[in-house]
Amino acid sequence: MKNVVIRNIQRADAALIEALGAQGSATVSEAQERTGLMQPYMRPIYPTARVAGSAITVLCHPGDNIMIHAAIEICQPGDVLIVATTSSSTCGMFGELMGTSCQTHNIRGLIVDAGIRDVAELTTMGFPVWAKAISAQGPLKAVPGSVNVEIVCAGVTVRPGDVVVGDTDGVVIVPREHAAEVARIGQERVEREEQVRARLKAGEYGVNFQGLRAKLIEMGVEYVDE
Amino acid sequence: MKNVVIRNIQRADAALIEALGAQGSATVSEAQERTGLMQPYMRPIYPTARVAGSAITVLCHPGDNIMIHAAIEICQPGDVLIVATTSSSTCGMFGELMGTSCQTHNIRGLIVDAGIRDVAELTTMGFPVWAKAISAQGPLKAVPGSVNVEIVCAGVTVRPGDVVVGDTDGVVIVPREHAAEVARIGQERVEREEQVRARLKAGEYGVNFQGLRAKLIEMGVEYVDE
Amino acid sequence: MKNVVIRNIQRADAALIEALGAQGSATVSEAQERTGLMQPYMRPIYPTARVAGSAITVLCHPGDNIMIHAAIEICQPGDVLIVATTSSSTCGMFGELMGTSCQTHNIRGLIVDAGIRDVAELTTMGFPVWAKAISAQGPLKAVPGSVNVEIVCAGVTVRPGDVVVGDTDGVVIVPREHAAEVARIGQERVEREEQVRARLKAGEYGVNFQGLRAKLIEMGVEYVDE
Amino acid sequence: MKNVVIRNIQRADAALIEALGAQGSATVSEAQERTGLMQPYMRPIYPTARVAGSAITVLCHPGDNIMIHAAIEICQPGDVLIVATTSSSTCGMFGELMGTSCQTHNIRGLIVDAGIRDVAELTTMGFPVWAKAISAQGPLKAVPGSVNVEIVCAGVTVRPGDVVVGDTDGVVIVPREHAAEVARIGQERVEREEQVRARLKAGEYGVNFQGLRAKLIEMGVEYVDE
Amino acid sequence: MKNVVIRNIQRADAALIEALGAQGSATVSEAQERTGLMQPYMRPIYPTARVAGSAITVLCHPGDNIMIHAAIEICQPGDVLIVATTSSSTCGMFGELMGTSCQTHNIRGLIVDAGIRDVAELTTMGFPVWAKAISAQGPLKAVPGSVNVEIVCAGVTVRPGDVVVGDTDGVVIVPREHAAEVARIGQERVEREEQVRARLKAGEYGVNFQGLRAKLIEMGVEYVDE
Amino acid sequence: MKNVVIRNIQRADAALIEALGAQGSATVSEAQERTGLMQPYMRPIYPTARVAGSAITVLCHPGDNIMIHAAIEICQPGDVLIVATTSSSTCGMFGELMGTSCQTHNIRGLIVDAGIRDVAELTTMGFPVWAKAISAQGPLKAVPGSVNVEIVCAGVTVRPGDVVVGDTDGVVIVPREHAAEVARIGQERVEREEQVRARLKAGEYGVNFQGLRAKLIEMGVEYVDE
Repeated sequence: MKNVVIRNIQRADAALIEALGAQGSATVSEAQERTGLMQPYMRPIYPTARVAGSAITVLCHPGDNIMIHAAIEICQPGDVLIVATTSSSTCGMFGELMGTSCQTHNIRGLIVDAGIRDVAELTTMGFPVWAKAISAQGPLKAVPGSVNVEIVCAGVTVRPGDVVVGDTDGVVIVPREHAAEVARIGQERVEREEQVRARLKAGEYGVNFQGLRAKLIEMGVEYVDE
Repeated sequence: MKNVVIRNIQRADAALIEALGAQGSATVSEAQERTGLMQPYMRPIYPTARVAGSAITVLCHPGDNIMIHAAIEICQPGDVLIVATTSSSTCGMFGELMGTSCQTHNIRGLIVDAGIRDVAELTTMGFPVWAKAISAQGPLKAVPGSVNVEIVCAGVTVRPGDVVVGDTDGVVIVPREHAAEVARIGQERVEREEQVRARLKAGEYGVNFQGLRAKLIEMGVEYVDE
Repeated sequence: MKNVVIRNIQRADAALIEALGAQGSATVSEAQERTGLMQPYMRPIYPTARVAGSAITVLCHPGDNIMIHAAIEICQPGDVLIVATTSSSTCGMFGELMGTSCQTHNIRGLIVDAGIRDVAELTTMGFPVWAKAISAQGPLKAVPGSVNVEIVCAGVTVRPGDVVVGDTDGVVIVPREHAAEVARIGQERVEREEQVRARLKAGEYGVNFQGLRAKLIEMGVEYVDE
Repeated sequence: MKNVVIRNIQRADAALIEALGAQGSATVSEAQERTGLMQPYMRPIYPTARVAGSAITVLCHPGDNIMIHAAIEICQPGDVLIVATTSSSTCGMFGELMGTSCQTHNIRGLIVDAGIRDVAELTTMGFPVWAKAISAQGPLKAVPGSVNVEIVCAGVTVRPGDVVVGDTDGVVIVPREHAAEVARIGQERVEREEQVRARLKAGEYGVNFQGLRAKLIEMGVEYVDE
Repeated sequence: MKNVVIRNIQRADAALIEALGAQGSATVSEAQERTGLMQPYMRPIYPTARVAGSAITVLCHPGDNIMIHAAIEICQPGDVLIVATTSSSTCGMFGELMGTSCQTHNIRGLIVDAGIRDVAELTTMGFPVWAKAISAQGPLKAVPGSVNVEIVCAGVTVRPGDVVVGDTDGVVIVPREHAAEVARIGQERVEREEQVRARLKAGEYGVNFQGLRAKLIEMGVEYVDE
Repeated sequence: MKNVVIRNIQRADAALIEALGAQGSATVSEAQERTGLMQPYMRPIYPTARVAGSAITVLCHPGDNIMIHAAIEICQPGDVLIVATTSSSTCGMFGELMGTSCQTHNIRGLIVDAGIRDVAELTTMGFPVWAKAISAQGPLKAVPGSVNVEIVCAGVTVRPGDVVVGDTDGVVIVPREHAAEVARIGQERVEREEQVRARLKAGEYGVNFQGLRAKLIEMGVEYVDE
């Protein structure tokens, strides 16, 4: 249980990551039985933020970002930083300078279960971030932590190399070993939804063609004309 | 106390609904003596969201949206769905497919005291939603509830057919039987405010022409030149 | 301990206020050793809101804004209103009419540790506001308070004439007597960051040129190739 | 929509109130289909607090308790004060002096969707209170409100004369006109639970004798021996 | 703005401190015009906790308690530790060992705007603590801070040597230079309340003998017999 | 990714569980490097609650407790139920009847990341529970879930058979495979703390004998006599 920086991790197949990213967090979380979704307090700093990539996990002391610096160096293009702290904090752990470094090395985004700052600059740069709080409060670089150990971020277990999908609806984590199956199930959902959308646009009611009316009656719901 | 879907409700006059919608939530809540306003945690999913219409109320089990499906079918053009759950939850209860169905049938918007998802798509479609949380977490369709019974949503009593006015400042409910009186009082406020606005733009101080200075003196507030 | 309105206060030098405003809340709070920053629940009503000015402090009873009216009259161009309440409340304390009066007299913005309303109109006008909540709930004008006494707003002590710097990252207060020193330290940070930015864009890693690797090793962090 | 104090209200039968109080909030809320329960932030000031009585409703301005004074005078022995404010606040609205007056007139307790103070003294006196916050912050007596109008308290509609049942699990409101039916259904639950308790104590499993195993199998839950 | 430990501070007169402590937080906060009261999230770890003493202020990095160790050494008998952190955190900053050291040196209690642990042991010892959270999470001793500088704790400005009064209703700070005046006003309140209590116990109504009925009528409140 | 009930799990050695329970949550979380601690919102229903045992994990739909019934049957004496829900909810998931069944079968306690009810009865019975909320709101038995799959509860990963230690300071999870090592490190801490306690009681200062003074000086903290 020493502090470590693990340099080499396994990642999911790039095509699977793209597919999951295109499906979006709502479809992906459905495809894995409504699991893997971070708590709703994790919000993007701008509404069009989207990300999909491989998780590089970072465990920090609250108010200290030295391990994020250490993590940036070992990222590969396409990775996403996922940061948790050992106890709850709202300190601003990351700003525009680190975002510049991330973009230079093609790191795709940041998920941080604490605060973020330089929000205006990060938005202008188009660097997507999901955070618990916005705070100009700056961090120290004084206390050690770890990179690429298993963490829990906003209520979800994240292991290095898991697939991260983030958008306006939230952030979902797909365990690396399930990525192919989840992508396949998600794709089926996307296709099924396309058919449902067409019927709804034609004026049909979901309560009819999705078999809900029988269910309502069976559950004892009464229709009343007052 | 069985679960019911009440099909026919009374609605306020369409012209009154338009008038209240044009006045906005701040003026309308003032016009009914600062009552009827939902808790401030209810926020629109995009800043320009506005709605005015007749309430179709829906009572759901947390994490289950089968009753929203049942409610869509009995809405008329101009209605607004108001959804409460039997206990507190942040599950995403409604998304783009249901929004598509609502728009097809000219349902004007959704107020949900729980979570919402597909926020990017609903924003692009221009379907206005006010919610407690944004969450990709999907609901089930397994537990019965009711449509068009009296509910409490975000701290406010809502009865079927009440007038709903929502905008960036929040959501206010006007009991159907008070709609005419509230619209009239609101209109007077709008006109009075126009006069106040003109004087303020001319550089006059509210503390003078609104009679507050005398009140301040009477209450014992001292003006001090240090 | 009577209620007072203090008319004349000392303000910081205008050039210092502009300099601090240009540095922004993150740099300024760093420059004063991570102090003076309001709690992260204070959010701007639109993302591009920015303000810098001299604090006119207002202490109100919850749900009563008569003292804000009294404060507007004694402001000078370039001032910023900072409003606290004697106990916690989310009532909407300020709206478009008062914003119109403020703009007419070149008051630069409002920080209110309570609710705000007419958010759409204030955004259109470009009047920047930071608040704890958005609420259409209207205030009374019935209970006395004070103007230009020391207050605590969102966890920070504010004295009349202190420098206020607000942007998307939050609101920071610089005690008037420290403004020159903080502006100087902040300017040094800005210049140092420019150099760091250039190196990061060139692909260097902060963990190297900012001396962090030695620190990590010294703290016992192990690098592991799995 | 003027401010009023309504002196005479109808109350439920005393025997029904006692019966509902003996059943407790959990049983009573079940007996009315999981409705009528206040939000869980309403907590008793001491763990053994229990109350059952007729609601006298009070609508106050935040931070102002003049209407509670007005309400005490019109209570009858056995009544319970239910206090809401027109916007959210944590101000201490009630303390030991008012508790003394209540006990003198056999008012049974207080439910306040705001703050309470003199908690130690009220506990010693055995005057039961449920509140959102504990705060020494004192109120004013400056702004009018109403007594015995319909209010919403902690998410529940309360009408004068409704039955209030409060204990460690929370506060539930029974509409006066349903009191007899709810008491009857609750009594059936109490008796049924007594039988269940005996079987559980004998070592039977609920999953067996409550018919849940068939349900689990039907829902596709698999039992696995690893 | 360096980190400092200021060894010698001025304290209020011991008799004044005892008098304020005997009055309690509710009376004292009233006596200074409803100011100086910490936010209601600051709760005692056991309900009978009471403290009065001179503030020794401590400013810590979140999750680091080295400065509390430094502060204990410079306390005098009768002092109370008041701890703030530079950004928001719930880490457990203090436990039974430090409480043992405090009791040994007759330090009277702790107010900490973060987490506390060893709550069972501190309760058994009778060492009173008010905190924002209870958390077993342990702190580091790695980052410097200051002792006896002005801080803001739970929304209140605290200067070294200010009088701290804490009980079940919360924590109130009396600026040292106002201690005598506040104690005097508080004493008058206590005596006045004794008279009010006697009249209330005799069955009189506050709405009568406190002059509220005239006020209610003047404010337009109507009494209605339905 | 089907719903399953896994009947047989591995558990840690009973003696290790007792040892960890005796050390308590604060010592145990320290012994595993400040990890494994649930968020501080998880509170015991009575202050003397203590538990140590093997985790039986339960994943429920919000507001539905059918899987807890299924879990009770497969528990062994000494187990502790750990319940998470698929999305956030405060519904009361467990009450006195289920507590009776648990006690009958020597299940030691419950940790539930949702609501609990029958708090008075569970307290009288001495059945220890940690929960996010207290709510009389009753659950359904209509939606499937799983037993003994990996879950995240209050921010911590829990696997079936992990060791659970709960007391007034919170709940900590020790992975089964680390139980022996953590118990050993914890024991060393307990012994070291005994020595520290003796020295502190003798009046020594931690800042001296724990080597902090040198650290403070090295970090640039200045001692000032004003």
